[in-house]
Amino acid sequence: MTLAVRYTAARTLDTAPADISPPGPGEVELAPAYVGICGTDLHIFHGDMDARVATPAVLGHEMSGRIVRVGPDVEGWAPGDAVTVMPLRWDNTCPACQAGHQHICQHLDFIGIDSPGAMQQRWTVPASTLIRLPDSLPLDSAALVEPTAVAVHDVGRAAVKEGQKVVVVGGGPVGILIALVARSAGADVRVVELSAHRRALAEQAGLTAWDPAAADVLELVREWTGDAGADVAFEVSGAAGGVNTAVDVLGVRGRLCLVAIHPRPREINLHRFFWRELTLVGARLYDRTDFEQAVALVADGTIPADLLISKVVPLTEAPAAFEALESGGDVMKILVDCADDTQGAAV
Amino acid sequence: MTLAVRYTAARTLDTAPADISPPGPGEVELAPAYVGICGTDLHIFHGDMDARVATPAVLGHEMSGRIVRVGPDVEGWAPGDAVTVMPLRWDNTCPACQAGHQHICQHLDFIGIDSPGAMQQRWTVPASTLIRLPDSLPLDSAALVEPTAVAVHDVGRAAVKEGQKVVVVGGGPVGILIALVARSAGADVRVVELSAHRRALAEQAGLTAWDPAAADVLELVREWTGDAGADVAFEVSGAAGGVNTAVDVLGVRGRLCLVAIHPRPREINLHRFFWRELTLVGARLYDRTDFEQAVALVADGTIPADLLISKVVPLTEAPAAFEALESGGDVMKILVDCADDTQGAAV
Repeated sequence: MTLAVRYTAARTLDTAPADISPPGPGEVELAPAYVGICGTDLHIFHGDMDARVATPAVLGHEMSGRIVRVGPDVEGWAPGDAVTVMPLRWDNTCPACQAGHQHICQHLDFIGIDSPGAMQQRWTVPASTLIRLPDSLPLDSAALVEPTAVAVHDVGRAAVKEGQKVVVVGGGPVGILIALVARSAGADVRVVELSAHRRALAEQAGLTAWDPAAADVLELVREWTGDAGADVAFEVSGAAGGVNTAVDVLGVRGRLCLVAIHPRPREINLHRFFWRELTLVGARLYDRTDFEQAVALVADGTIPADLLISKVVPLTEAPAAFEALESGGDVMKILVDCADDTQGAAV
Repeated sequence: MTLAVRYTAARTLDTAPADISPPGPGEVELAPAYVGICGTDLHIFHGDMDARVATPAVLGHEMSGRIVRVGPDVEGWAPGDAVTVMPLRWDNTCPACQAGHQHICQHLDFIGIDSPGAMQQRWTVPASTLIRLPDSLPLDSAALVEPTAVAVHDVGRAAVKEGQKVVVVGGGPVGILIALVARSAGADVRVVELSAHRRALAEQAGLTAWDPAAADVLELVREWTGDAGADVAFEVSGAAGGVNTAVDVLGVRGRLCLVAIHPRPREINLHRFFWRELTLVGARLYDRTDFEQAVALVADGTIPADLLISKVVPLTEAPAAFEALESGGDVMKILVDCADDTQGAAV
């Protein structure tokens, strides 16, 4: 018997036994080791995505683990291989896929939202989703590869170049990862974040963080850039005020990369887009090259995993961890340890 | 004595004698032949730009004419040369100029708004603003070069490529020019416009125009693009609904080029920017290469000037023409004929 964390209704998670069937053609069965709790998982937990999520739903898409069984017609993978998963299934026929943008397929199956996720002791996925992990990479750190791939994709969409001045609005896990990836690309980065705990953590990672409640961020940007404005801003806060800040800090021809999800329309100062010839780019998910770069950045320590992982909880305590995260508090990333001790640890 | 059209207060224009002084070093004195009335001129007339415009203000920046006198230290220009003017003076020292974006200089002097414009019988400008016109190009047609340069710049900012599907929201003069320039770049273009007169004119220019009051534009786009959505949209309407249409017609990785001026913030569906990885680019004015391409497009008939010029009025009737334009009506572009018959026509 294996266990799974299931979303059954708004604010309700349980752990329950899950069936295992042998992997089918082209599939592999994994033993998830660690699964990160993502903002999207919290949105589901809040009940915000009930229109999309079929209950009971197994959550989780930020994972690391090892292969347990390999189905027919799978080449190049073997039991014991350490992997993470790029949790996307596309149809290859829609106009987006035909144009080469499979990751934003018009009928995308996001595994962990639209189909069962990783927060369980056994998980069967298409072999095409697997990303190999180096043996030297600890599996807890490797659970950060997926959000790091998001950051790599965002930095790519924003076309961050060496020497550029970059403002990241919102210093949660994805904001910090973006800041770190942008810095590794040679950018000079500032993080704008209200939470003192998150600012302190950003500073520990060697970043400079500003408190928008205590300082005039636009004035700080003017001083920092010699009145030029920033080259790139990332909106990672999800707040209306964050959007305004991200627009206002930009200099001529600046690029705003929209990372946070804004379910409702936001008022935007379009006049400034006209006046300074700004660009806004939406960024969603990642592709395989983003994942491969993310593996390298986590493996070489560019991403300080130990600093970002606040806590590891056993699978049976995942429901409580969601409740704790919802009430805020001084945490960055929480991992769920899925190891199935009754069957021998996967790590 | 020469005459000038002057804005003196909201909804008040007059014609009054203007002083002429000899052109200074680096300057030339022009005899404007034709000056188009632009949407911006109408905004000034409405009083919307009183905070920026010092009265009395001579309006006009869409012009053609001939050189009358050449000041000291001006090379390469002679009396009689047919010219248009790129009406920009930049400071060459601000961060925008230093970054090579002089046309959006942070202290830009837009001649015709921030300093005296072309709607007069003699006009002194820096020789650096001159753009040479071919002798074969009629000067009335040449008054369309400036708005065509806007369109060339917009199509460039939108990165329109051959074979792409392009929606232009708003079929006024700039919208039609954008549609024509995009078509000349090999795009398949649709114009969305409420006015039957403007749609008819677009059709006369060989364009396809849709009436958003009579048809579901999103459904038309779905049919037209096989559910892929458009590659590029231009927002030229200035209306809140126009912005929504321009966002909603786009397919994955589509580009929205923001041309119209929206003085107040607009609600934008940012979720769609995220979901489809859309891009929004602001576009303002033009540079010299845009002007040179615009001269070629007007000269070779890509821009059907006769179709777009609804009416030519003498300078003394310009105030009445502004009033007529303000009340709407079936017009596209109105030119002011500045010829000074008492001193010999400049044309």
